[in-house]
Amino acid sequence: MLYLVHMVVNIPASVPAEEAARIKAAEKAYSQQLQESGQWPHLWRVVGEYANYSVFDVASNDELHNTLSQLPLFPYMQITVTPLAKHPSSIR
Amino acid sequence: MLYLVHMVVNIPASVPAEEAARIKAAEKAYSQQLQESGQWPHLWRVVGEYANYSVFDVASNDELHNTLSQLPLFPYMQITVTPLAKHPSSIR
Amino acid sequence: MLYLVHMVVNIPASVPAEEAARIKAAEKAYSQQLQESGQWPHLWRVVGEYANYSVFDVASNDELHNTLSQLPLFPYMQITVTPLAKHPSSIR
Amino acid sequence: MLYLVHMVVNIPASVPAEEAARIKAAEKAYSQQLQESGQWPHLWRVVGEYANYSVFDVASNDELHNTLSQLPLFPYMQITVTPLAKHPSSIR
Amino acid sequence: MLYLVHMVVNIPASVPAEEAARIKAAEKAYSQQLQESGQWPHLWRVVGEYANYSVFDVASNDELHNTLSQLPLFPYMQITVTPLAKHPSSIR
Amino acid sequence: MLYLVHMVVNIPASVPAEEAARIKAAEKAYSQQLQESGQWPHLWRVVGEYANYSVFDVASNDELHNTLSQLPLFPYMQITVTPLAKHPSSIR
Amino acid sequence: MLYLVHMVVNIPASVPAEEAARIKAAEKAYSQQLQESGQWPHLWRVVGEYANYSVFDVASNDELHNTLSQLPLFPYMQITVTPLAKHPSSIR
Amino acid sequence: MLYLVHMVVNIPASVPAEEAARIKAAEKAYSQQLQESGQWPHLWRVVGEYANYSVFDVASNDELHNTLSQLPLFPYMQITVTPLAKHPSSIR
Amino acid sequence: MLYLVHMVVNIPASVPAEEAARIKAAEKAYSQQLQESGQWPHLWRVVGEYANYSVFDVASNDELHNTLSQLPLFPYMQITVTPLAKHPSSIR
Amino acid sequence: MLYLVHMVVNIPASVPAEEAARIKAAEKAYSQQLQESGQWPHLWRVVGEYANYSVFDVASNDELHNTLSQLPLFPYMQITVTPLAKHPSSIR
Repeated sequence: MLYLVHMVVNIPASVPAEEAARIKAAEKAYSQQLQESGQWPHLWRVVGEYANYSVFDVASNDELHNTLSQLPLFPYMQITVTPLAKHPSSIR
Repeated sequence: MLYLVHMVVNIPASVPAEEAARIKAAEKAYSQQLQESGQWPHLWRVVGEYANYSVFDVASNDELHNTLSQLPLFPYMQITVTPLAKHPSSIR
Repeated sequence: MLYLVHMVVNIPASVPAEEAARIKAAEKAYSQQLQESGQWPHLWRVVGEYANYSVFDVASNDELHNTLSQLPLFPYMQITVTPLAKHPSSIR
Repeated sequence: MLYLVHMVVNIPASVPAEEAARIKAAEKAYSQQLQESGQWPHLWRVVGEYANYSVFDVASNDELHNTLSQLPLFPYMQITVTPLAKHPSSIR
Repeated sequence: MLYLVHMVVNIPASVPAEEAARIKAAEKAYSQQLQESGQWPHLWRVVGEYANYSVFDVASNDELHNTLSQLPLFPYMQITVTPLAKHPSSIR
Repeated sequence: MLYLVHMVVNIPASVPAEEAARIKAAEKAYSQQLQESGQWPHLWRVVGEYANYSVFDVASNDELHNTLSQLPLFPYMQITVTPLAKHPSSIR
Repeated sequence: MLYLVHMVVNIPASVPAEEAARIKAAEKAYSQQLQESGQWPHLWRVVGEYANYSVFDVASNDELHNTLSQLPLFPYMQITVTPLAKHPSSIR
Repeated sequence: MLYLVHMVVNIPASVPAEEAARIKAAEKAYSQQLQESGQWPHLWRVVGEYANYSVFDVASNDELHNTLSQLPLFPYMQITVTPLAKHPSSIR
Repeated sequence: MLYLVHMVVNIPASVPAEEAARIKAAEKAYSQQLQESGQWPHLWRVVGEYANYSVFDVASNDELHNTLSQLPLFPYMQITVTPLAKHPSSIR
Repeated sequence: MLYLVHMVVNIPASVPAEEAARIKAAEKAYSQQLQESGQWPHLWRVVGEYANYSVFDVASNDELHNTLSQLPLFPYMQITVTPLAKHPSSIR
């Protein structure tokens, strides 16, 4: 089941640079693990912004929330979720 | 080169039903031709709306505009384009 | 799986009164069938508006879109879908 | 009498972690007490956000405000209240 | 129980002038009846707009919706309802 | 001359608790003095928010600004003013 | 007493050209009469738009509403009113 | 003196196709005359929309408004004007 | 050449009170000098807000930006500029 | 390939003045290098704001993102990118 997810990152200046670097590294590792498992099939950077559009493929709303809320950057992101359905003109 | 494209369809009541049906059939055929050529790799329905999120893969801004403006539903859609770039954490 | 659904109805003046009455009756019958089957567990009127907030309980995004797009009033509604998850403080 | 209530939580970084944990625990206890008393019949997490949609069942606007303003997280939430009425198509 | 109600009137050009005049006269009569009964204690024009801010005093959300939805101008108004509570600094 | 005034309070965390308490007490005293003088005839809490809707009755725009800008909470409020006129259907 | 007034004109296509011309001529005559009487001291075109920003100088909210609602273009304008006060740095 | 101008075109269905074609041809001729005279140095299509971003180079606000309001499509466009100044880092 | 300028002031709590007082005094002196030179012909307080609407009369976009960016409060203001043109119904 | 880029600068008070000056100098040098290479053909100040509208000429979405994300002010800017295409009425 697919969802379009928009994430905008905003790490406040009060987070020390080392802590921010640690969080970003953990985020990258976790996101790559989810990409490899197939739960996060698409991850694109929005040009000019510290933001991404992603597609998640999960079994339920609960699985999506659990996955997103464990992102190391979760406390510093504004996330918007759009549920997707099969389009009648799609050839896939 | 990838772009996220959001299309919201609004066919006014003044378009006769037969004409609307003809336009939708042409739209479907054209979209499937673009999907098969690889220019329109993803097409998803937004749940609960007469709208879609799509990903286009084209060589330039001009090619994208030419492609979108030839959609049979183009006069009846509100389209928003977001250019995408490779994400540093993407494994693709 | 639960979704909050917001529906705002706007039947244009170009729809004849009898046709509008027929659509509303069909909508009522269909909505009550979905309520009885358990797919539409909550349906509330928004005070002062021709709008409702509803909760749907379905197995997937696709099932929700299929259900909503078959509503007789679907062409005349602006629908917004918010996916819901279990809340950690909920006692249910 | 029912109200849809949307709560978005935003605890500023200036609140120490222990204090935040204490507030969240008190919030959970208070919310469960209200759920058990029947005043807070529904509490759902919004997928991907530190937010919830809730339904409250109270006797008056004043009772709702008193209830909400005593939430331990009240100073850190943006709350929006929508009064609900019986829908003519509801089977309940 | 008090509610602030904002009403913006927009009668489409397709309504004949005589019909519009008849609706406005009925609206005036109905609103004055509600004012005299105490359900509509305040009715103010917004300067420069075909709109009003009103205060309603009713026993429940359902009573408010029933009252508003019977306004002769209801099909031609955009209505927003804000529930009000006693303010701790109010001397009333 | 009447004005609808919407006030949203937001006291930043940098204001010490004692100072905040002192400001709120002064605000309450000043608001009650204005209510008793007839300049602030209505003061209602917005349900679920640290905000109010008020009606002021003053002789001029200048008098209203002078009154509002002397509110002890003025530096911590977002205020919106809507001028009101007599409504032709009002019985008052 | 001064007010900033923003007027956006939108004459629907259903108004015949002759009728529109008649309304615009009446609007011009009425606006010039108000300018000469001192009630409408400033009238500026917004560059690129069929809109204006104006300053009105009237004795009360009621006088302003009466004046604006008699504008021949009133049914075809979206009007926003901002009450103005003396600025402490103004030399006037 | 430079201005960024955003134009969104929306020709209503009530304009006959021949009339629309005539207006578009006149718009093209007029725009090319202004481009050649140097008053309209840049004209770009917004990808996916019936809209453009343009730069105008004129001597005054009045000249810009006169130029824009004579565009054959002016009655069917929503225009937004942003005045531009020399940027201190520009090498031009 | 006239421009409507909207300025909203927001001095952060981190600016010491003495520094804020010094900046406001410099702002007042500078604004009065510009009013006397004729570049800032109108300066009005927005009722209930720490904001003003002003009219500037300058020779060019560049002169306006230079003037505004030298305001002592410039770093603490959100400024919006609307270019104005002569209105065909204005008697001035 | 052209893009319109809107940049709004907001350097927080927590950045020391010397650091801010260093960043701005680096930004100026980098922007001038990009202007000279032809990648940043237009850079204009928005009148009254600490913001600019720019046109970039690059080979791809990726090149644009790489260029923008290396701007020394990137962490302190809100950037919006609009892809541009050739306009059929453009004489260029």
